[in-house]
Amino acid sequence: MPVPFDDRGLAYGDGLFETVLVRDGRPSLWDYHLARLRRGCAALGIDAPDEAVLATLPAAAESGLSVLKVIVTRGSGGRGYQAPADPEPRLRWQLSAFEPRRERWQHGVAVRHCRLRLAEQPALAGIKHLNRLENVLARREWTSPDIAEGLLTSIGGHLIEATSMNVFWRRNGRWQTPCLERCGVAGTLRAALLERLGIDEVEFEPTALETVEGLCLGNSVQGLWPVTALESPSGEPLERWRISDDLRFFQQQAHALLGYPAGI
Amino acid sequence: MPVPFDDRGLAYGDGLFETVLVRDGRPSLWDYHLARLRRGCAALGIDAPDEAVLATLPAAAESGLSVLKVIVTRGSGGRGYQAPADPEPRLRWQLSAFEPRRERWQHGVAVRHCRLRLAEQPALAGIKHLNRLENVLARREWTSPDIAEGLLTSIGGHLIEATSMNVFWRRNGRWQTPCLERCGVAGTLRAALLERLGIDEVEFEPTALETVEGLCLGNSVQGLWPVTALESPSGEPLERWRISDDLRFFQQQAHALLGYPAGI
Repeated sequence: MPVPFDDRGLAYGDGLFETVLVRDGRPSLWDYHLARLRRGCAALGIDAPDEAVLATLPAAAESGLSVLKVIVTRGSGGRGYQAPADPEPRLRWQLSAFEPRRERWQHGVAVRHCRLRLAEQPALAGIKHLNRLENVLARREWTSPDIAEGLLTSIGGHLIEATSMNVFWRRNGRWQTPCLERCGVAGTLRAALLERLGIDEVEFEPTALETVEGLCLGNSVQGLWPVTALESPSGEPLERWRISDDLRFFQQQAHALLGYPAGI
Repeated sequence: MPVPFDDRGLAYGDGLFETVLVRDGRPSLWDYHLARLRRGCAALGIDAPDEAVLATLPAAAESGLSVLKVIVTRGSGGRGYQAPADPEPRLRWQLSAFEPRRERWQHGVAVRHCRLRLAEQPALAGIKHLNRLENVLARREWTSPDIAEGLLTSIGGHLIEATSMNVFWRRNGRWQTPCLERCGVAGTLRAALLERLGIDEVEFEPTALETVEGLCLGNSVQGLWPVTALESPSGEPLERWRISDDLRFFQQQAHALLGYPAGI
């Protein structure tokens, strides 16, 4: 399902996307994906796609695990940045067979701080829009398969997210996650965990990671990865953590939402 | 010339574009467009397209004025934000007949301050990448055809550009234009004028526009528009300017670069 040259998603990133874990044709965290897509459409002023149409998409998946990627763009045309008076949003989607990185559930991952700083744009914070060059540039900072993710700090000096996952840590006996009002993507797994568990949304400087009892990364497709090692952008070791029972419990809560087994 | 669903330009805005004024099959400011495209490709780590191929595109235009729009994306695929090890960049282009807004050359335009603040991202500043949601959102702030452009201020409080044009003003007998090291697009007309005229690149707060002797907007397609009136985001009148001889001379220099007549 290609898009034409004049599609505004291609021209300007003028649209949104969702990636949904699908098991045997049934989507996970579907209401959270729909809610974020609606919120994104409202923020950009795009008519949200018909939810009855969206609801038919996961059923086309093969049995087993798939990922459904949905892209909604404002549609074609306009005069430069000015959209047509009555744009016709374009819906595109693709289903792909999927295997999560199960070994990362059990053994955890090593991550690295990225050099790139996220710009702060409250008008676009939290939503999953198509302007993702910062994530692309950050992901280019390392190639070693031993590094699973990169941590992103804002220009304002706060830890925000990983390149494609949200970040959670335990500190003074509480689970915490960054406030995403100025930048970052508010993940659907994060939203579901925030509703169910007592998690604080905080402003947090990355140097304070030396004080945390445990760190993990999560999204609605891969589930939850414990972080066992943290390096600087140039590869110097900074911190190491053992995977605590608290973290295993948190992972179990996350995986229950996605139909995944507990990590161990 | 569509692009496939998995094109990274569509998925992430992972690419660049240029819009080139073409007269009778010959491009204007071609070397400047090529230079910016090369700079953008270097910033994103995309192999720049073959300039011999690009050079063949304007010749396909009809006689008279056209605009050539070129999009270069990193190509298809990858694992999420991570690009394939050996991506094949994708080149797409379109030629459209074009008529500049000649009446604006002569009579000038009214502009408005936008409410949206541009985020500061030095890694992407100056280049013409495909992540243009800020410009799209800013352009949505007004619909009146009496307002030709919106002025954009950065989150740091500096005047940067208009939604699709660069900004120039005259102050204390000098032409000035904003420094674009933290955000904004460095236009090709701006680059050519900077090389030829004594223009200062400065950090400038938008409230200081009350002290300028003249204001104008320009890009390589529309030429140079004198600004005769400035309003607040809610439409309150802030400043008015007459079109001075200095501004007409500046316009004449700009239009000579584009093959356009002097504005009067």
